[in-house]
Amino acid sequence: MSFKSDNCGPAHPAIIEALTTANQGFAPSYGTDDLTARTEARLRDIFEAPEASVHLVATGTAANSLALSTLTQPWQTIFCTPLAHIHTDECHAPEFYTGGAKLSLVGEGDKMTPEALQTAIEGWTLGDVHCSQRGPVALTQVTEMGRVYSLEELAALTQTAARYDLPVHLDGARFANALVALDCTPAEMTWKAGIDAVSFGGTKNGCLGVEAVIFFNPAKAWEFELRRKRAAHLFSKHRFLAAQMLAYLTDDLWLDMARAANAKAARLAEGLRGVPDCVFLAEPQANMIFATLPRATHQRLMRGGAHYGLNQGPLDTGAPDEPLSMRLVCDWSIPEDAIDHFVTLAKGD
Amino acid sequence: MSFKSDNCGPAHPAIIEALTTANQGFAPSYGTDDLTARTEARLRDIFEAPEASVHLVATGTAANSLALSTLTQPWQTIFCTPLAHIHTDECHAPEFYTGGAKLSLVGEGDKMTPEALQTAIEGWTLGDVHCSQRGPVALTQVTEMGRVYSLEELAALTQTAARYDLPVHLDGARFANALVALDCTPAEMTWKAGIDAVSFGGTKNGCLGVEAVIFFNPAKAWEFELRRKRAAHLFSKHRFLAAQMLAYLTDDLWLDMARAANAKAARLAEGLRGVPDCVFLAEPQANMIFATLPRATHQRLMRGGAHYGLNQGPLDTGAPDEPLSMRLVCDWSIPEDAIDHFVTLAKGD
Amino acid sequence: MSFKSDNCGPAHPAIIEALTTANQGFAPSYGTDDLTARTEARLRDIFEAPEASVHLVATGTAANSLALSTLTQPWQTIFCTPLAHIHTDECHAPEFYTGGAKLSLVGEGDKMTPEALQTAIEGWTLGDVHCSQRGPVALTQVTEMGRVYSLEELAALTQTAARYDLPVHLDGARFANALVALDCTPAEMTWKAGIDAVSFGGTKNGCLGVEAVIFFNPAKAWEFELRRKRAAHLFSKHRFLAAQMLAYLTDDLWLDMARAANAKAARLAEGLRGVPDCVFLAEPQANMIFATLPRATHQRLMRGGAHYGLNQGPLDTGAPDEPLSMRLVCDWSIPEDAIDHFVTLAKGD
Amino acid sequence: MSFKSDNCGPAHPAIIEALTTANQGFAPSYGTDDLTARTEARLRDIFEAPEASVHLVATGTAANSLALSTLTQPWQTIFCTPLAHIHTDECHAPEFYTGGAKLSLVGEGDKMTPEALQTAIEGWTLGDVHCSQRGPVALTQVTEMGRVYSLEELAALTQTAARYDLPVHLDGARFANALVALDCTPAEMTWKAGIDAVSFGGTKNGCLGVEAVIFFNPAKAWEFELRRKRAAHLFSKHRFLAAQMLAYLTDDLWLDMARAANAKAARLAEGLRGVPDCVFLAEPQANMIFATLPRATHQRLMRGGAHYGLNQGPLDTGAPDEPLSMRLVCDWSIPEDAIDHFVTLAKGD
Repeated sequence: MSFKSDNCGPAHPAIIEALTTANQGFAPSYGTDDLTARTEARLRDIFEAPEASVHLVATGTAANSLALSTLTQPWQTIFCTPLAHIHTDECHAPEFYTGGAKLSLVGEGDKMTPEALQTAIEGWTLGDVHCSQRGPVALTQVTEMGRVYSLEELAALTQTAARYDLPVHLDGARFANALVALDCTPAEMTWKAGIDAVSFGGTKNGCLGVEAVIFFNPAKAWEFELRRKRAAHLFSKHRFLAAQMLAYLTDDLWLDMARAANAKAARLAEGLRGVPDCVFLAEPQANMIFATLPRATHQRLMRGGAHYGLNQGPLDTGAPDEPLSMRLVCDWSIPEDAIDHFVTLAKGD
Repeated sequence: MSFKSDNCGPAHPAIIEALTTANQGFAPSYGTDDLTARTEARLRDIFEAPEASVHLVATGTAANSLALSTLTQPWQTIFCTPLAHIHTDECHAPEFYTGGAKLSLVGEGDKMTPEALQTAIEGWTLGDVHCSQRGPVALTQVTEMGRVYSLEELAALTQTAARYDLPVHLDGARFANALVALDCTPAEMTWKAGIDAVSFGGTKNGCLGVEAVIFFNPAKAWEFELRRKRAAHLFSKHRFLAAQMLAYLTDDLWLDMARAANAKAARLAEGLRGVPDCVFLAEPQANMIFATLPRATHQRLMRGGAHYGLNQGPLDTGAPDEPLSMRLVCDWSIPEDAIDHFVTLAKGD
Repeated sequence: MSFKSDNCGPAHPAIIEALTTANQGFAPSYGTDDLTARTEARLRDIFEAPEASVHLVATGTAANSLALSTLTQPWQTIFCTPLAHIHTDECHAPEFYTGGAKLSLVGEGDKMTPEALQTAIEGWTLGDVHCSQRGPVALTQVTEMGRVYSLEELAALTQTAARYDLPVHLDGARFANALVALDCTPAEMTWKAGIDAVSFGGTKNGCLGVEAVIFFNPAKAWEFELRRKRAAHLFSKHRFLAAQMLAYLTDDLWLDMARAANAKAARLAEGLRGVPDCVFLAEPQANMIFATLPRATHQRLMRGGAHYGLNQGPLDTGAPDEPLSMRLVCDWSIPEDAIDHFVTLAKGD
Repeated sequence: MSFKSDNCGPAHPAIIEALTTANQGFAPSYGTDDLTARTEARLRDIFEAPEASVHLVATGTAANSLALSTLTQPWQTIFCTPLAHIHTDECHAPEFYTGGAKLSLVGEGDKMTPEALQTAIEGWTLGDVHCSQRGPVALTQVTEMGRVYSLEELAALTQTAARYDLPVHLDGARFANALVALDCTPAEMTWKAGIDAVSFGGTKNGCLGVEAVIFFNPAKAWEFELRRKRAAHLFSKHRFLAAQMLAYLTDDLWLDMARAANAKAARLAEGLRGVPDCVFLAEPQANMIFATLPRATHQRLMRGGAHYGLNQGPLDTGAPDEPLSMRLVCDWSIPEDAIDHFVTLAKGD
């Protein structure tokens, strides 16, 4: 009964099977193999971006850091929210990869508004050699609070960035979950909405460990290749990254898994609405739920074997009715009876 | 008929199978799972090093760069040979990870001698703020020319380093191939010979992509963890790194594959001794052969479908009898008849 | 009539004269000369810190960045206010020198409180490999709004830092101005108040360009020397840095200049209190004044030849009575009649 | 009697005087003052380069590192000789400023040949993502052994670089000494010979501490400004850098001092030719002499009060007739009788 994270769940059997299939005889290394070429072509196809440069890496932090460092000079600042994964959960990988860029925090929550973005951008004076120079805007879709930017919201933000000639990166660790939530195409959620580069996640949605970095303008493709190798993220047996990604994209497996994960989170949210004193911190739109429950409810859940992220503590002392916040994540694999059991436990019936 | 590299061959089926086995239900992420703990314990056991800190990464360059950066200050120089992989094949990953350390080249070839090492060390004056400060010694075992340091050679080098209080790192991308060539224990080839840290390779010897970094003194374990995360090399679904490594170490699979690879290279070398004008550039001691053949022989081999590294060219023009050097690598999987066919082609019978 | 900055004013003639005096014959280079040794001894004396390590550099940003990088690991965060010079005016020098450390902003203004500092520190979870690790606290004295921390305020902040085992750095670009404002000793304002390292400014207070970095615990003195050289901040003709600093510290010249600057700012503030619609943004405690005046008043001042920092604009359009903020800085040299003339102009009599 | 280094000698009185003259009233800071503008114009004039971008810094290592980092990507290698100051004497400043570029050593001595340069360039395969990418060529004029590249030699090297599309940087710490030795114009020794950027030294030739970085193509001027500020090398009281440089360039002072220094070195060399067992290691062409003398001669010189660089030791033990190498440097100020006395001492008459 684990709602800890979508990186705790298993890979989809079809992904594992693809590894076995790919494991036949010899293949050129370092991404020069056929399977990699086919995978890259498939991604370009799905994104309706025949010119895009496509690169595979094994971790989401690698995708974000390498993509951002390709877009950012060391004396520039990246604009992101205070909850952005790149700020809170990557142990300075963006700062390391960029050679010392700064992250300027926009607004207060998980989503930025065009107004807050503009204020942040103008917070650094253009042409002033003393201060941080303006750099890329970094968005996360699904956000770190489980919400999804609408296409209109994305367009408004990228238009703001464009007014200042700033590129926009999208951290799509949960790209598929957002896509099915919006029911749009990959192109619509990215380059058609003004996104320049995207970290297209596979790991959290049923792969073992693979992400694609996609630049819709391929001008910096070779620089990215050098950055990836220099950072030790170029796999020698690259076919095993490609095999995962290609299986992921075959027969809509990626969309099916994302739909399953979102549906399960919706079922869980529906159940939680009936739990006394459950307060949602954000409207769940994909596969994550942020809410508070009384301490006593958490104690009951944990005693009952539930695993999930408890964001504030301590659990064992303090008033039983004090609300403590939690993060619940559903992956494609979690059984519906686990969800129902969780709700039952929470209700304490 | 590929002798291109041991990273072009397939993973061993038992390694793939271990992924399937590990892919059951939920597991804690980022290396906090049981499988990882068991794998680390197994490595400590094999190395007879109960105190050692053990860390898994997915690429050899990550292992080397992270290990070396933990041992090196940015103003220090790493001592390595001019053929060292860290110098010639990692696109400045060591310089990137260390924040600008230098690589000082020792001697002329793939193996360093204590005398050459001493000369290189003394080339940088102790206590002089203007010059490079003396840092770790980096050895490769199997060397980049396919040779193996004897235990006596290793000890002589580490003793030289110790006289200057310098730590020693071993790039063991082909650790198993060297080990079975020397017929010694992992402890004998590392800490008992004065090695402080080792990159213990799995990828080139039948895994998909996994290496272990081992520090025999665990004082910097937490720093390494931070460096690994900051570099985006901490896997969320870490069990899939652990599963590979544990299967690799089970029932001597790693040693069996290394023995197979070395035996195949020996068979190939034996065959090449009968090929006209074949000149060995180094005595093959593990699974790699460096030799020259006349241009015409190479042409015949390549027309016949052989794949391998041709280190100088061009192939198509110039005298047919001009010797061109090649690298031939045998992995555990290459069939014996491919070897024999290669020799037959080379002989041109 | 320049109130633009204390780095726009002239050096004191005695400082220039010291250069001439120092310019006799040959002297060992790179800080190994007698004059440097005497200067370092003088600083240790003034700070009552016989064990301290003392290092001269030419710019304040070099002093801050080198000092902080000696105290900060790349994966750590520095805690400073959002107005800190290291955040707003050093073009990522701290990030560059530290190899990618982060700056976590404490509170809202120019001074931090122990409570805000504690909140910021606890914002990064101890022992979590994913997030920023807790690093040094960086204070500025005089603050960027012209205020001065009392000794009690400093002690409360350093005690908070100490509870988390974090070192404290003091940016003393205007050290002397703060010291005479508090009427205390250098020791009282630094190590007796819990400060670990200080950037002791000379440039803004009558030197051409010299600052001292002082570590009260000299354990990292050699590392600092390497960092300074690696950053190209070790002067070959080092005697010319030392000569400035020694003259600065001779016969209380540094204190006299600071007292003069502060007194002039006090006279200016006193005058401004009589200017219609002048609103102080912070109580002036040293040699800087932050206040707002109506746009029309600014227009009159600038037409009259006044130079100073106008922090928001535009000057030429908009309502004449709209308040616009300014920064006025007095150095030791500004004539009293310039001050009085400024006030007269402002009053518009 | 100091022949230790030209950075041990005094500044020319006219340079000091210029500081006094510049020290009048208020001036805009950070290089926006008139004196700086005039100095930059003067440099453009002297170099017959009306489009060039000109930037002042205080140390030679800053000039080299900032210039090279502007020309070099972190994954590129700089080609220089094994004796290059940037390799042997800057404590990794080039590696630090470039973010981890490599220095590839060309040839064996202080001067590179086009053939050796070509070999070094081709040592790194074009388009191979694994290896160092080809970057700028870095020459030193006067070389680190006191020799001077002829204009033909410079042109041959820059033509080699140009065939590979690589820019060329000239470390001109002793630019003036080389210029008067060649009796050519600054333009002839730089852009007319194919040089792209130059570190134009003042410090070693009679200034306190000032160097100019000149890019003949100004495309990266703003990037350089950001790099200089980020590295803490932008002086607030910038007029004091400009004043030195402008005085240096006025009335041919720079050329007069260089001619004096070279003439004195020639006189010293002439004298040494009469010293028994004195062997020159390189033909002196500017203001430095590299030669060997028997140990006993060194002992006599040092007992007699001579200061100079003894490059190998120990002085006190070993055979009296063993040759030990030395470096003797003459600056503009050293008296002729000191030279003559040195020779007399060396002769042991």
